[in-house]
Amino acid sequence: MQTLTVSLADRSYPIHIGSGLLGQAEHILPHLKRKQVAIVSNTTVAPLYMQTIAQPLRDAGVAVIEIVLPDGEAHKNHQTLQIIYDHLLQNRCERNTTLIALGGGVIGDLTGYAAATYLRGVPFIQVPTTLLSQVDSSVGGKTGINHPLGKNMIGAFYQPKLVLADIDTLTTLPQRELSAGVAEVVKYGLIRDADFFDWLETNMSALMHLDAAVTSYAIYRSCENKAEVVAADEHEQGERALLNLGHTFGHAIENAMGYGVWLHGEAVATGTVMAADLSQRMGWLNAAEVARIKAILQAAKLPIDAPDLGADEYLRLMQLDKKVADGRIRLILQQSIGKAVITADYDAEKLRQTLSLAA
Amino acid sequence: MQTLTVSLADRSYPIHIGSGLLGQAEHILPHLKRKQVAIVSNTTVAPLYMQTIAQPLRDAGVAVIEIVLPDGEAHKNHQTLQIIYDHLLQNRCERNTTLIALGGGVIGDLTGYAAATYLRGVPFIQVPTTLLSQVDSSVGGKTGINHPLGKNMIGAFYQPKLVLADIDTLTTLPQRELSAGVAEVVKYGLIRDADFFDWLETNMSALMHLDAAVTSYAIYRSCENKAEVVAADEHEQGERALLNLGHTFGHAIENAMGYGVWLHGEAVATGTVMAADLSQRMGWLNAAEVARIKAILQAAKLPIDAPDLGADEYLRLMQLDKKVADGRIRLILQQSIGKAVITADYDAEKLRQTLSLAA
Repeated sequence: MQTLTVSLADRSYPIHIGSGLLGQAEHILPHLKRKQVAIVSNTTVAPLYMQTIAQPLRDAGVAVIEIVLPDGEAHKNHQTLQIIYDHLLQNRCERNTTLIALGGGVIGDLTGYAAATYLRGVPFIQVPTTLLSQVDSSVGGKTGINHPLGKNMIGAFYQPKLVLADIDTLTTLPQRELSAGVAEVVKYGLIRDADFFDWLETNMSALMHLDAAVTSYAIYRSCENKAEVVAADEHEQGERALLNLGHTFGHAIENAMGYGVWLHGEAVATGTVMAADLSQRMGWLNAAEVARIKAILQAAKLPIDAPDLGADEYLRLMQLDKKVADGRIRLILQQSIGKAVITADYDAEKLRQTLSLAA
Repeated sequence: MQTLTVSLADRSYPIHIGSGLLGQAEHILPHLKRKQVAIVSNTTVAPLYMQTIAQPLRDAGVAVIEIVLPDGEAHKNHQTLQIIYDHLLQNRCERNTTLIALGGGVIGDLTGYAAATYLRGVPFIQVPTTLLSQVDSSVGGKTGINHPLGKNMIGAFYQPKLVLADIDTLTTLPQRELSAGVAEVVKYGLIRDADFFDWLETNMSALMHLDAAVTSYAIYRSCENKAEVVAADEHEQGERALLNLGHTFGHAIENAMGYGVWLHGEAVATGTVMAADLSQRMGWLNAAEVARIKAILQAAKLPIDAPDLGADEYLRLMQLDKKVADGRIRLILQQSIGKAVITADYDAEKLRQTLSLAA
């Protein structure tokens, strides 16, 4: 097991990465204020892993409430949130009750937001079971739900007490979701870690085959990058926005196609290619660099061709992005592989060419 | 105008108290990150004061979105919250848009919670227009909504950038709501400020007649007490719970009668008498002190007789309180006038006598 720390003063917390962690209650027990937890999972993950984590806790004398939600991004909404609140209230959960999120990003975001808002805040623990949530969404305290008018529009910054990333859970992950997670791994290389990008080019095949050492290292290094960014800018006033490489384009795609049709990581991969395309049009990336970006995403079996929504529709959807400031869309663009910037200082006509999927 | 500060490191903020403040945009302008605000009010307050505050802001070049909600505690729920979100999204409000709560405690709690959760947090300003919200709910950052299974069960700690308490708004307040506010004023005297309690005994008639100097002083001293408590214990881990004197009993009454039938302050007043009754049964207060407590509340035209729900029903409803720890109801009780404690160390049979309204 490897451990690293997200450094946020009195809200610092450890991330444990390794094999077999789900069945080891000793990682969780020291973080409980009271021997009562509510484990929130979904209909896909709960049959696989709920008892793996719940039974050792029960054996250690912890009262465990199980909350099983419908699966999918389409359920990351207010209605599903109410299901969590209802269970917590019916079971008289108190301020010392710890919520445990067992699942992917949707479960983590929903559970984290429920924890942030139930009784004005109760402790929670992230147990991410997808690659995407292990390398990205479980770390950093972004929680929230979607609104019919936009993704992640309602939420809170709320840090977990612990992140437990068990790589064994990736063996049951569909290949398409594994690929979606790799999109975020590649992102860290692109925005701030050129060496990691090089390493990924070499090790992509092993990662896609879930070689244990390669997978653990990829998760560790991703979390390390994310932890550094979050520690420097918890509330996304500056550098943290770089983590949204590809996301402004990607959110527009997800929103247009209907939440859950494209996986988040697939939309991000395609958005990353769009950001690279605009970066090339701005003269910041050369053709070879763009080709490397496309190649590594293709090696991860990710889509790189954006749907043709028309530039106007893209612009309309992108206006909903949380990074819009004074009506101006700010984008994360590449200055090189390993260096991204957030900027509103791009050529609007070139953005239109990118969105028109012009050759 | 008098000003005091709530000291919370980088989240500190001023409270301005005085006459005519609503029409003075200069108090608000320095706090806006962008010249766009959304003013949230209700159908009772908006016709009286919306333009008083909105027009000077517009004259200063601020874009003003007006959001008018139905009035009443019964609307402090998820459905009303959605109305706020919908307006904000439809108007493309961004992270730099400031929300302004113009109204009483319900508007303040709803708007503050919307501000805490919209785009994971936008700035907000409290402009309380009732005595209760000026002396209590607008200060300290408690925000939230009710759930069908309990009051204020969903929420966040989220501090405003400014509190603007204009005593002129109290002239349009129904007497019953004025009394409800006085219940919270009396509370500060009871829990930590015996001198203030004495002063209130002398000045209650002037306060009920809204004498300007007496009213300003009562608000200032109440906010001063609240600010000290909040600064010492922002997240209610300890002393802050004392502010809930009468509230555990009061919430049970509100919950049993249906939200909004009893005013919050009326329920608190009655709950305060119940707390005093139990304190007397415990031997902590004498009969003369209990008589003084009843007398000052009656001078404020507040109810002091609890509805007869039966002890079992009271206990069931009180179990939902957020202060319950390890299944044990913790209560705020009086050791003397001017000194309250939070304790689970009371005689359960004596509590049952209080709840049974035994003589």
